[in-house]
Amino acid sequence: MMQHNLSVAKTIKALLDEKKYQSTKDILLTMNPADIAAIFEELAEERIPLLFRLLPKEAAAETFAELDPRLQELMIRGLSDTELREIVNELYVDDAADLVEEMPANVVKRILAQADPQMRKEINEILRYPENSAGSIMTTEYVSLRPGMTVAEAIARIRKTGVDKETIYTCYVTESRKLLGTVSVKDLLLAEDDATPVSQIMDEYVISVNTLTDQEEVAQMLAKYNFLALPVVDTDGHMVGIVTFDDAMDVLVEETTEDIEKMAGIMPTEKPYLRSSAWDLFKHRIPWLMLLMVSATFTGMIITSFESALAAQVVLTAFIPMLMDTGGNSGSQSSVTIIRALSLGELEFADLPRVIWKEIQTAFLCGLALAALCFAKIMLFDRLLLGNTDITALTAFVVCFTMAVTVLIAKMVGCTLPICAKKLGLDPAVMASPFITTIVDALSLLVYFAFARALLFG
Amino acid sequence: MMQHNLSVAKTIKALLDEKKYQSTKDILLTMNPADIAAIFEELAEERIPLLFRLLPKEAAAETFAELDPRLQELMIRGLSDTELREIVNELYVDDAADLVEEMPANVVKRILAQADPQMRKEINEILRYPENSAGSIMTTEYVSLRPGMTVAEAIARIRKTGVDKETIYTCYVTESRKLLGTVSVKDLLLAEDDATPVSQIMDEYVISVNTLTDQEEVAQMLAKYNFLALPVVDTDGHMVGIVTFDDAMDVLVEETTEDIEKMAGIMPTEKPYLRSSAWDLFKHRIPWLMLLMVSATFTGMIITSFESALAAQVVLTAFIPMLMDTGGNSGSQSSVTIIRALSLGELEFADLPRVIWKEIQTAFLCGLALAALCFAKIMLFDRLLLGNTDITALTAFVVCFTMAVTVLIAKMVGCTLPICAKKLGLDPAVMASPFITTIVDALSLLVYFAFARALLFG
Repeated sequence: MMQHNLSVAKTIKALLDEKKYQSTKDILLTMNPADIAAIFEELAEERIPLLFRLLPKEAAAETFAELDPRLQELMIRGLSDTELREIVNELYVDDAADLVEEMPANVVKRILAQADPQMRKEINEILRYPENSAGSIMTTEYVSLRPGMTVAEAIARIRKTGVDKETIYTCYVTESRKLLGTVSVKDLLLAEDDATPVSQIMDEYVISVNTLTDQEEVAQMLAKYNFLALPVVDTDGHMVGIVTFDDAMDVLVEETTEDIEKMAGIMPTEKPYLRSSAWDLFKHRIPWLMLLMVSATFTGMIITSFESALAAQVVLTAFIPMLMDTGGNSGSQSSVTIIRALSLGELEFADLPRVIWKEIQTAFLCGLALAALCFAKIMLFDRLLLGNTDITALTAFVVCFTMAVTVLIAKMVGCTLPICAKKLGLDPAVMASPFITTIVDALSLLVYFAFARALLFG
Repeated sequence: MMQHNLSVAKTIKALLDEKKYQSTKDILLTMNPADIAAIFEELAEERIPLLFRLLPKEAAAETFAELDPRLQELMIRGLSDTELREIVNELYVDDAADLVEEMPANVVKRILAQADPQMRKEINEILRYPENSAGSIMTTEYVSLRPGMTVAEAIARIRKTGVDKETIYTCYVTESRKLLGTVSVKDLLLAEDDATPVSQIMDEYVISVNTLTDQEEVAQMLAKYNFLALPVVDTDGHMVGIVTFDDAMDVLVEETTEDIEKMAGIMPTEKPYLRSSAWDLFKHRIPWLMLLMVSATFTGMIITSFESALAAQVVLTAFIPMLMDTGGNSGSQSSVTIIRALSLGELEFADLPRVIWKEIQTAFLCGLALAALCFAKIMLFDRLLLGNTDITALTAFVVCFTMAVTVLIAKMVGCTLPICAKKLGLDPAVMASPFITTIVDALSLLVYFAFARALLFG
């Protein structure tokens, strides 16, 4: 797809060079707003306003909503007040609210000045809700019906008011703003009798979310129930808006990226990689690197305190990286599995005993298999093949036993920390590989040296 | 939500104990099939067929589609042929195809025997396509219209044929099976004149996918364009089915889980965590653990070859964990960022030079900051505070310089490997932390010892 857009971008550049505006417009008309936006991002900035003016009003607004905030700001600065007014009032109100949230104060002022009073009121309504809440991602434009309407009246109402609703396919039956039920256009169209009242065919067991429900939960509910939209009600049970499936999909992708970044010890960012400067990347990566580096002081101290033992048996040092890496890998397998299950809602705190028991069994199996393989490797490869006679069967045993214990510790720490973090209201994703590796490193070295001391220097 | 279902499950258990079937039925009727399925999974297995028979036909089929394959199999074995026939023919054809794919051969035989001839034909059609392709997740039930139909005729056709289509909201205009355009129910309802031919209001610039397009790409296109469904065409340009947004959402979640698992060195599985046995978990985790453990042999060999140097300066050993962990963390930050950007389609092979340049700059900044902090930490904490006089400024310099070089190497390896893997048709997600840690460990030790030899033992 990207390749395709790039070559269209080239064609458009060439056409603009030759001032062939009509052909350019014809090409744009064949395209989806998301693709037009992608082309805008490829073009030199001074060309964008010109290209934008070639688009019909609706396509212009849709393309605008797809642009990255940097380009949106640039465009707004290049538009006249009249042009801005047209675009702003053509936007869906949730997109307009997103825009207002992203822009600097002086641009926001211009946007709100050009918005119709109704639009302005609704934007402000959405902006009242905390970030990442259902209220902040909902749209206030939906089709509402009265329970007493007939199917024919309902269809007539949709035809009359549907044009600027984000979705018309699920309609909400309300009375004095209370949500009574939902009815789909499918139900209305397939109803056998046009005179049936809406209240008779509506589904009165409505699944709704509160304005303050977390956006990730909303997205997961939409995914679970396969709904086109979920109604949002305030604490008084009054319907205030809907969250549509397309916004839910964006939320799912965004939140997952955030989780993945946190699991790798990166502070989350919304900027796409290629648009982040090295300085941006640095700022998001250095805090965890520093923290983890400093916390490795403990492992250093442990090694230092066993310095004399190590000096006597330097061969023990050679196995430190293998023990640490295997511990880190085992721990991150568990923690990542648990973090994902938590974020998909498959696990909760009450499951902790079952999880621990499962991980103990798994750790036992993994530890046994790894220890056996490791023993064979050390005796056959390191001792026989490489002829390292410093390595005795006892040394190999110490290493392999440490390995098994390390795997057990790593899996325990890896499964327990994320669940406890969640319970404490912290983000489980932060309890992933880097963090756990640091803890497991220290613990596995302690086991290693304690055991070596007992068996080898006893 | 889960908590809520659990308490409903309790109520239903109590009602069943008292044989209050009507009340049980009344409760079930208020619930969404996804929630009913969740309750089934909480109940004792022998109760499920009874509960299932309380549901009306449509709800029964929808609930059945939401069940986990284990329960589906159990249910089918408990159903009579007549009951099975009703359920199977009520299913959407893509759900029926999924079912056939999951069940053992003897159950499949029963299912296909009970399916209507048309259903059987369509199931077989879908099963022809390779796993994870658009063809394998599509449904063949969609509304098709003729270009010459008027708006009124189109609406009449939807009303007549729409009842068992998965979505009626996007209709496909075809002629001799060629896809000419799409028209939404919104366009039809909002059309000003009922006599307008469909060909005049349809969107003829249709975005479609091929039967063999990868399901992840299909899902990302649906997310990008905010479509309810994407048409699937075969290599002759004939329309064969549609992929709907709800299946796309499931694909997005599944594929991301798979990526996350691979990044943590786990072989992907579709089984939810709590339903996986310790043996399952073991089988999916041990291959990478073994591979990575064995590959740590190199780091061991490097240390062994510097054994004499280490024996003379045991203090150097104390910094090995810190250097290795920082290298691993730096590398995994880069690799995970790049893997995610690749899977979101934000990056491709042609961007490699830009990526490398960005990572070099970032590595430079991170390396400098870490080296400075590390130097201060070693001199103030390890040497002054802990009074470890073995540590000289020169030792600290060797450690910090190695640290900076390690960060650079780690970020280079971390960004290059996933992009090259993708180019070679391999899965970039496998090139994540565990794999990169192993490479970076070996390289950083080589740098460390080479540098120590030059400066400390020169």
